[in-house]
Amino acid sequence: MLMKDLFELTEIADEYLKSDKTVEISIINSIKDIVFNNGYFGIAQINTIAGDLEYNSKKIAKYIRFASAVGLEAVVFPEFALNGFPIGDVVKRHGVLLSDTKKWLKEIAEFAGNTVALVGFMEQSGDSSKYYNSVAVLRYGQVQRIIRKQVISNTSRYNDNKYQVADISDDDLYCGYGITIGDEIFSDKQILQLVYNKRPKLFINCALNTYADSRKILRANCYSYFASKYKKPFIYVNQTGANDNILFDGTSRVYDASGNLIARAKYCEEQFLIVNPTGGEGKIYPLPDGYDIGLRDNEEFSLYYGDLERIYKSLVTGVKDYFSKCGFKRAVLGLSGGLDSTVCAVILADALGKENVFGVSMPSHITSKESKTDAEQLANNLGIGFAEAPIWEMVETTALSLNGLFTNVEKKWNVRYKNPYTPDNIQARSRAMFLWGISNEFESCVPIATSDKSEAYMGYATINGDMSGGFAPIADITKTKLFALAKWINKNRPQKDVIPQSVIDKRPGAELAIDPKTGKPLKAEDALMPYEFLDEIIWRIENKHQCYNELLNTVFVYEKRNNISKVQKQEWLDKFYRRMSTAFYKWSIMPPFVMVEPHSINSCDYTQPITTSHINYKGADVKYINSCLGSNSGA
Amino acid sequence: MLMKDLFELTEIADEYLKSDKTVEISIINSIKDIVFNNGYFGIAQINTIAGDLEYNSKKIAKYIRFASAVGLEAVVFPEFALNGFPIGDVVKRHGVLLSDTKKWLKEIAEFAGNTVALVGFMEQSGDSSKYYNSVAVLRYGQVQRIIRKQVISNTSRYNDNKYQVADISDDDLYCGYGITIGDEIFSDKQILQLVYNKRPKLFINCALNTYADSRKILRANCYSYFASKYKKPFIYVNQTGANDNILFDGTSRVYDASGNLIARAKYCEEQFLIVNPTGGEGKIYPLPDGYDIGLRDNEEFSLYYGDLERIYKSLVTGVKDYFSKCGFKRAVLGLSGGLDSTVCAVILADALGKENVFGVSMPSHITSKESKTDAEQLANNLGIGFAEAPIWEMVETTALSLNGLFTNVEKKWNVRYKNPYTPDNIQARSRAMFLWGISNEFESCVPIATSDKSEAYMGYATINGDMSGGFAPIADITKTKLFALAKWINKNRPQKDVIPQSVIDKRPGAELAIDPKTGKPLKAEDALMPYEFLDEIIWRIENKHQCYNELLNTVFVYEKRNNISKVQKQEWLDKFYRRMSTAFYKWSIMPPFVMVEPHSINSCDYTQPITTSHINYKGADVKYINSCLGSNSGA
Repeated sequence: MLMKDLFELTEIADEYLKSDKTVEISIINSIKDIVFNNGYFGIAQINTIAGDLEYNSKKIAKYIRFASAVGLEAVVFPEFALNGFPIGDVVKRHGVLLSDTKKWLKEIAEFAGNTVALVGFMEQSGDSSKYYNSVAVLRYGQVQRIIRKQVISNTSRYNDNKYQVADISDDDLYCGYGITIGDEIFSDKQILQLVYNKRPKLFINCALNTYADSRKILRANCYSYFASKYKKPFIYVNQTGANDNILFDGTSRVYDASGNLIARAKYCEEQFLIVNPTGGEGKIYPLPDGYDIGLRDNEEFSLYYGDLERIYKSLVTGVKDYFSKCGFKRAVLGLSGGLDSTVCAVILADALGKENVFGVSMPSHITSKESKTDAEQLANNLGIGFAEAPIWEMVETTALSLNGLFTNVEKKWNVRYKNPYTPDNIQARSRAMFLWGISNEFESCVPIATSDKSEAYMGYATINGDMSGGFAPIADITKTKLFALAKWINKNRPQKDVIPQSVIDKRPGAELAIDPKTGKPLKAEDALMPYEFLDEIIWRIENKHQCYNELLNTVFVYEKRNNISKVQKQEWLDKFYRRMSTAFYKWSIMPPFVMVEPHSINSCDYTQPITTSHINYKGADVKYINSCLGSNSGA
Repeated sequence: MLMKDLFELTEIADEYLKSDKTVEISIINSIKDIVFNNGYFGIAQINTIAGDLEYNSKKIAKYIRFASAVGLEAVVFPEFALNGFPIGDVVKRHGVLLSDTKKWLKEIAEFAGNTVALVGFMEQSGDSSKYYNSVAVLRYGQVQRIIRKQVISNTSRYNDNKYQVADISDDDLYCGYGITIGDEIFSDKQILQLVYNKRPKLFINCALNTYADSRKILRANCYSYFASKYKKPFIYVNQTGANDNILFDGTSRVYDASGNLIARAKYCEEQFLIVNPTGGEGKIYPLPDGYDIGLRDNEEFSLYYGDLERIYKSLVTGVKDYFSKCGFKRAVLGLSGGLDSTVCAVILADALGKENVFGVSMPSHITSKESKTDAEQLANNLGIGFAEAPIWEMVETTALSLNGLFTNVEKKWNVRYKNPYTPDNIQARSRAMFLWGISNEFESCVPIATSDKSEAYMGYATINGDMSGGFAPIADITKTKLFALAKWINKNRPQKDVIPQSVIDKRPGAELAIDPKTGKPLKAEDALMPYEFLDEIIWRIENKHQCYNELLNTVFVYEKRNNISKVQKQEWLDKFYRRMSTAFYKWSIMPPFVMVEPHSINSCDYTQPITTSHINYKGADVKYINSCLGSNSGA
């Protein structure tokens, strides 16, 4: 056997730790030879299931056993490692979760021998429906100390700040470790300075960050700054993986006393890392391409998306975790031969395994032959299940039944539309009926909603139709980015060119209605506006918080490439605001989807009451206001 | 003309204020004769539209004009009167809302002459995406002063606490009025004591409370306590009406310096009230029956619901406001002859007018003749539109298409259920397809989801079927309460006995499947558990926060009346927790509904991540924990 270095050995051990197997004794001994009594720390970047104490505890115990066996000085787990996150209002309903946490923690402590284990957990407070956000110090078979978060921020979307109680404790030093929890170090209470005053030998931050959090922290280079300011090593341990819509991005980091990065864990992967913070030994794993794209100071909208590897990994993790944590196995989706369903199929196949994905082509009388061919070609390329199931009989029967009904309703209501969307929607809903049917008929199978972010903004999706499903893999990705992602997939996935080129080349359209001008299926951009323009509006209102008038006065990338009039631009902006203001209801019933961009329409990131649809987004001037209010003459 | 007293005159004026008409000069003069320079205050309990500055400003200006014309000392509006509530993340996206608010306020001020007007509004802070929760003091045509909320609570579900900035101001006294905003007076910062130290002549609290808030405040008799403690009159002004899921309950109140209630506005109605806080003159309008039912110290679950008048008014207001504020006019719903759709139809008719409601009976091969008769009878009684549209052709065609598809899927997936819910769900989804079809075909028409709270807890509702719609009127009401409400409606609505007795008498069932034992449609209670038992679980977990083991050891009302074994009880409790843990996804896609009970499954009141479905609700003992974690031998 060749001599392996510490990091190779750790990688081998890591594979065992993630599997059901126990780590081979030879590996343990080889690692022990290097790390025993030499100031090495274990970074346990774990993926937890929210509220599943048994699952999380087993994992934590296994990692602690390993850390003790190899003789690490300490092993550090993230914030809320034992309980997972988010918890929402669960503590209010399942008080047992708080009392049980204590029990599990006590038993886990038995595995901590000489090695110190730091485990984030929810600590029941005196008021039984509240808790401290705490880190337990486990050693010599017992809970030695509990450190509580001192500042609870007000910004969480997950209700947890309603239940967390802050506590100023003097006990945040153990063995010379200055221990802090999550974002309290960024508060104006100068928590780190207070800890520093107690003369720690190094800092440890047990945290819980999404990509959106991380980019803010990294943009300001906070951890490195703290390390170099106080001249102490800084250990930051994060969770990884998704629960519902929130995705923790891993990339735990260790900085030496000069602020140099000496170790970094992978993005969105469970990992056990060994590092020597004072000795400066560690391994820096690469970040996915474009991880730092949000870190530039002067962010500009661009159609050249550089963070596609990060997006791809995030989407696959989002799907994989939602399915496995909820206990689902299979997915069924409609394959239209269009971009959205195509990208969804690839993500699903990679997240669940091709044998667990079934694609159904459901042509109507409008569906082109090319669409059907593309759908089948993709399914064959991916090796997923495939069937064709025409919807025309169902559409015809439904339309017939409805026509009779409409005649009856019309007798009472003389407000029938001349050109209703009814025929379009019957098609979309018939397809959803098929997919939900399969989900009802086969075990552990979830139908997929294929709506993308551009369409969600425009409300360009059918209720109980294409926007309906148990999960919506790409609801946080705009259309132009999806095109870029499709190209990236063809180039970078182990199996190349899985997506038929014609899918990438054609202009998107729902194929639900015929354009009377061309006699061909209506294209989405004709009903909406050019996607390049639309996606820049979305980017600007999400990232720059620009209002209507600011957008009007900003030169769009699309404008630089195409000659459009001010009137045309205004028309598109008006259409955007008008459509968005009627889309809030649809957002409120969107299936779950994981947030992968810094901003999202997910209700965890953005909420707007449906009744606010009348907001005057253009603003009013004094003249208009006075004309509304009338004169001050009598009551 | 008979001499009318002040309160009769105010009622007449109030009618004008709510309409498009201006108040008659004779009324104004009569009121003026009494109130001018005599220390009278106006209480403007208004119903606002969230974010609609124009609508709200017009209303506020009209009230101020009136107050000035009759010569009131002051007129008081609620917290956030100008902007409405909730606002959610709107300020982040529509910065124009904050800058426009300032403009509208300035113009409104022109209507305030000698009369002081206090108007709650969102005041832009230095950081333009944040705001103060403020009250403007308007007088002599100008904004005289701005009072800011000093304590922002952490408990809002509406994200507004993320955007609100607290400010300690020394200016909370004007004209001797000690002005406070909302719940800051309940914080441990002793805001009212601080205000009192400045020697006010009376207290004014501009607030924004739901029924759930109000009952907490009233249970502790807070306002009266404050008045008597400080020996100063206390004026409390609340908003009324619904925005999306939140309903403000009105019932603004004035207490004299001894803590006696001297005036109270109506529940859930816009109202202008005149009161003399120091002179002790005012009118106390009655509360709906059972308003104070939550105020008793020792709350017990009961099947004799005493608060049906309050529930009924709340539901009607919820529907009326959602429709009018979103700009909808008509509703269409399926009439099954069952309790849920029947109660929904009555609520809709009373909220929207019978001419704007259409009921469709959609029988399948399972539907009983009685169900059809009951549906038609109800529609005739109410005078709403009615048609029958059988679904069997559609169901047959769908089933046929699906069977072919299933055979294809089965070739790949050998996991087809023996007794799937597919046939049941096809029926429910076909009906939803009809209702959404009507909504697509006729102007301004919303399909109604008829799910109730008991069924929502059990996930006993079909996705894209009966739980789908643009609004869900009764999603906060449990089944036993719906029965009580139906009886109350028959007895108390102006038109008596509108609901056929057979609807109230029959046991509920979805009529989607045949019970193989009886050959008759399966009843819901056979699939679930007795509703009396189910509803008590719901009540206990919501109100008493009881866990599984506590529920097991509590004697239920149902147990007192029926002889059931411990094993049976345990089986029902297990079923409850098992079903609830798979219902979170359905809760997340529930259509909007107004919360009328103190607790709700609405995501504004309770959220539980879908991935937490594996929580061990029974708790674990040390023996089990140790068996999970294994022994401490090696890694």
